[in-house]
Amino acid sequence: MAQQPTFTLKALNAMPRPAAAAALAEVFERAPWVAEAAGGGVPYPTLAALHEAMMKAVRGAPAARQLELIRAHPELGSKVARADLTAASQSEQGALGLDRLSDEEYARFQKLNAAYRVRFGFPFIICVRRHTRDSILRQFERRLANSVAEEQDTAINEIGLITRLRLCALIDGPGKPKTDGRLTTHVLDLALGRPAQGVHVALYEIGGSARGLLIEAITNADGRTDAPLLTNAPLRIGTYELVFRLAGYFTDSSRLFDDAVIRFSIAEPEAHYHVPLLVTPWSYSTYRGS
Amino acid sequence: MAQQPTFTLKALNAMPRPAAAAALAEVFERAPWVAEAAGGGVPYPTLAALHEAMMKAVRGAPAARQLELIRAHPELGSKVARADLTAASQSEQGALGLDRLSDEEYARFQKLNAAYRVRFGFPFIICVRRHTRDSILRQFERRLANSVAEEQDTAINEIGLITRLRLCALIDGPGKPKTDGRLTTHVLDLALGRPAQGVHVALYEIGGSARGLLIEAITNADGRTDAPLLTNAPLRIGTYELVFRLAGYFTDSSRLFDDAVIRFSIAEPEAHYHVPLLVTPWSYSTYRGS
Amino acid sequence: MAQQPTFTLKALNAMPRPAAAAALAEVFERAPWVAEAAGGGVPYPTLAALHEAMMKAVRGAPAARQLELIRAHPELGSKVARADLTAASQSEQGALGLDRLSDEEYARFQKLNAAYRVRFGFPFIICVRRHTRDSILRQFERRLANSVAEEQDTAINEIGLITRLRLCALIDGPGKPKTDGRLTTHVLDLALGRPAQGVHVALYEIGGSARGLLIEAITNADGRTDAPLLTNAPLRIGTYELVFRLAGYFTDSSRLFDDAVIRFSIAEPEAHYHVPLLVTPWSYSTYRGS
Amino acid sequence: MAQQPTFTLKALNAMPRPAAAAALAEVFERAPWVAEAAGGGVPYPTLAALHEAMMKAVRGAPAARQLELIRAHPELGSKVARADLTAASQSEQGALGLDRLSDEEYARFQKLNAAYRVRFGFPFIICVRRHTRDSILRQFERRLANSVAEEQDTAINEIGLITRLRLCALIDGPGKPKTDGRLTTHVLDLALGRPAQGVHVALYEIGGSARGLLIEAITNADGRTDAPLLTNAPLRIGTYELVFRLAGYFTDSSRLFDDAVIRFSIAEPEAHYHVPLLVTPWSYSTYRGS
Repeated sequence: MAQQPTFTLKALNAMPRPAAAAALAEVFERAPWVAEAAGGGVPYPTLAALHEAMMKAVRGAPAARQLELIRAHPELGSKVARADLTAASQSEQGALGLDRLSDEEYARFQKLNAAYRVRFGFPFIICVRRHTRDSILRQFERRLANSVAEEQDTAINEIGLITRLRLCALIDGPGKPKTDGRLTTHVLDLALGRPAQGVHVALYEIGGSARGLLIEAITNADGRTDAPLLTNAPLRIGTYELVFRLAGYFTDSSRLFDDAVIRFSIAEPEAHYHVPLLVTPWSYSTYRGS
Repeated sequence: MAQQPTFTLKALNAMPRPAAAAALAEVFERAPWVAEAAGGGVPYPTLAALHEAMMKAVRGAPAARQLELIRAHPELGSKVARADLTAASQSEQGALGLDRLSDEEYARFQKLNAAYRVRFGFPFIICVRRHTRDSILRQFERRLANSVAEEQDTAINEIGLITRLRLCALIDGPGKPKTDGRLTTHVLDLALGRPAQGVHVALYEIGGSARGLLIEAITNADGRTDAPLLTNAPLRIGTYELVFRLAGYFTDSSRLFDDAVIRFSIAEPEAHYHVPLLVTPWSYSTYRGS
Repeated sequence: MAQQPTFTLKALNAMPRPAAAAALAEVFERAPWVAEAAGGGVPYPTLAALHEAMMKAVRGAPAARQLELIRAHPELGSKVARADLTAASQSEQGALGLDRLSDEEYARFQKLNAAYRVRFGFPFIICVRRHTRDSILRQFERRLANSVAEEQDTAINEIGLITRLRLCALIDGPGKPKTDGRLTTHVLDLALGRPAQGVHVALYEIGGSARGLLIEAITNADGRTDAPLLTNAPLRIGTYELVFRLAGYFTDSSRLFDDAVIRFSIAEPEAHYHVPLLVTPWSYSTYRGS
Repeated sequence: MAQQPTFTLKALNAMPRPAAAAALAEVFERAPWVAEAAGGGVPYPTLAALHEAMMKAVRGAPAARQLELIRAHPELGSKVARADLTAASQSEQGALGLDRLSDEEYARFQKLNAAYRVRFGFPFIICVRRHTRDSILRQFERRLANSVAEEQDTAINEIGLITRLRLCALIDGPGKPKTDGRLTTHVLDLALGRPAQGVHVALYEIGGSARGLLIEAITNADGRTDAPLLTNAPLRIGTYELVFRLAGYFTDSSRLFDDAVIRFSIAEPEAHYHVPLLVTPWSYSTYRGS
């Protein structure tokens, strides 16, 4: 997500149609026809309107063409296919470590990919940037129970989510659709009636098999971290743990908790999750804040 | 702790002095003289008074005799000494797995034992039943910094704690000193204003190197477990985790927490720790209750 | 409610039928026939069974007889009728101050009584011991909207509640139906992790027009009041206020709350309401406990 | 406080000294010499620096002159003195209703004024805008126990607080000293995990003798009131009640609380008091937030 947009919507709107289509050609995986179809709507007032027009072209295309678009996507976690990935797909899958799977994980993905392909005749498509490995595996299993029609719809929807992110990474402009989520916290010391400053906070992703440290921070004078714990990207659906190191904050040894451990689930990648901690040496509360 | 007391205080009070001394001979490790000295105070109105009399005999004994008593105790986690343990010591150390140490742990205990013996000239004594492995190791390291006089006092105090437990296991009677702790919980559903029935609760001991499941239970109609999570013994000083399985209680998938994880510390083995959970799908609170 | 039961169920079961009927004659207002009808079921294993049998006799009686029973009840708050009240009715109405109404309140009751009598042709019956003046007035207004049949049912149900209480006051024995409610509290100091001892607690009944102090108490070492705040009677449906005097407990002047004021509603007279307070100088929580 | 500043600090700095002194003449009650003395420091970078310079002139003045300044202030709540009040004093006292005292209150103020004048020989001075009637009476009684020297200091400090407010009302410019407090709230529905929208909130001032409604508001989609409950002025030291009308928010009749009543104390007029409510139909929490 660190990469800067390449050009502005204003610039795009000013381009001749073939140049505009070329500029958008890689947004939809190996499907420059989508960009071409959307060219008719220039000028677009917002990025959301542009993306909507492109999705309308997809949804309005003949079933065979939609299927071709779906089939143009790589299998998830496929070693064989790796050399052949588009740059965008490679970056999306790499961020989740799907290009560095253990043999066991690779085998599980292969098995699911195979079952899925047999059942539906096209690869499993999911907007990887909105998921953890665990939630991808859960989706994989759940979606295997869908009918072919349902699943084709689901695949098109996921392509919508994927391309919305790609478009926002490529172009700067007004009316950007909301693609980012945010995770924040706030620690209040209820024994003293003021923000708890200097509390060490660590955020972990809790996977079925492993637990990864995502970020550490120290609360400031307002009891918050200087920056959100997660931001500037969709939150990944999954399970997380916030560990507040109370032993380093309450200097008196008389207390019930050395750590306040908050294990929670993120279900909405584009939402703001505010998870505060109200704490004394002998109690704490947490909740979905706002 | 399942073992039944062998006789009553009333019976002891009625015994001829030599029989009484024989009955109590093994309470203090290889030191029948303590029981003999305490024989003068018969009849004892309470078990607490009897134990106090025995400890008074120990504390009033010449320094050399106290040292001899201290030296009669086995080293902790010592494989070499194992064959030679009294039955009481063997049972106490076995409950903590100190007779099944890994090679690495065995090496750590050996190193601490050696350092301790060099510094103080007697074995490290601790009332094992009040500790987890982690808290024993921490005590070991802390006590290495004591002066010899302080440490001799500490050893006698620990012998007091050990023998108080042995006495209560051996004899039934009034005025039993408080040796048991208790851990209980209570789950209230604040969204419905009533006890949360059917919540799966698991209690883990959290060690430096490992995590052991101690007990699982399901909350009843009053939101409590049918029996205390821990009882009928001293609580072991250490760190624990209560995991409340909320995903199985809140049937609607819309919630922030699949589990409420409460990591807490026990510092007082003879105390009652009540750790309730006040919960909704989007919040929880916990505290030291009463 | 302080009055002691006059005889036991065992004694009643042993009485000749006419004596038993005489002993129960005043349970149903001016309707000795109910007691006579119930005489056939002797011996009764429980008080609940006895009361159930009497109510079955009432519900099985011809409509005209039921109406006669309903009409035998006095009007609420009627000064005119006062001289003529049975002792039981007088005590029930007196406890709520219905015999000491202000002229304005008297006028309001008169107006409702008149409207009710015109609409239904019988007096408004309610189990006064389960209500505050406010909830009686609310019920009065609500029930005016009932159909005659609904209201006759409601009156019989209320007679059931009234006579259940009278029966339990008159007879001692097993299987007493649950007629008592209970209000308790518990104050925990979350800054110190222990019960808050010495907190002054006052309970008020909050009426539409006035506010009456019901009881004051001081929390003990366990953070509870020595006795329930309300007990040994049905709780009266209505609004209450618990005022915890924190200014006398937190000696440091630095705090947000001098009083924790908890205004709450009681809707179930026979239930246990546990209303705890979790408090620090800068926060408090309350909830329906168990 | 609605009145707009008359001129800017920049304008003041540009004035000839006599004009500047004239412009500031009424800031200190009948003491134009303070403004004259402060004229030497022109230009002032900030309003705080200007006020500091004026207070330095006061504190550096001979004792007799300070006493004269103190004596130039009117007595509080004095009917006799009323015709003679400066416009500033009249507005300050009027906002608190000190010009509309009942006979009883008037008598109490007169008695305190008399006792104070006998003891100290000058009128009781307090920055009225930072107080409720109750806290003024409490201060009055407390300060009667001071020594004359302590009380003279206190009077000068209060003059500092009074003139700081007058200066900020008169002049616009950078470096305004913090004279305003703020009271805000936030209602979160913990049963639904989102802000509670549409909750009616009423704020009352709770006096020893009376209770006055200050403001009513409805929570918005973020669970907050559109504007702070109190702002743009110092908060008045005293006791307040926030009443959240839960009966209008929780539509189901099954609940413990019709209102969440939060009685709290404000001790720091220039602070931000954030008093949130975390609520379900069966529980609520409140605390000093940030």
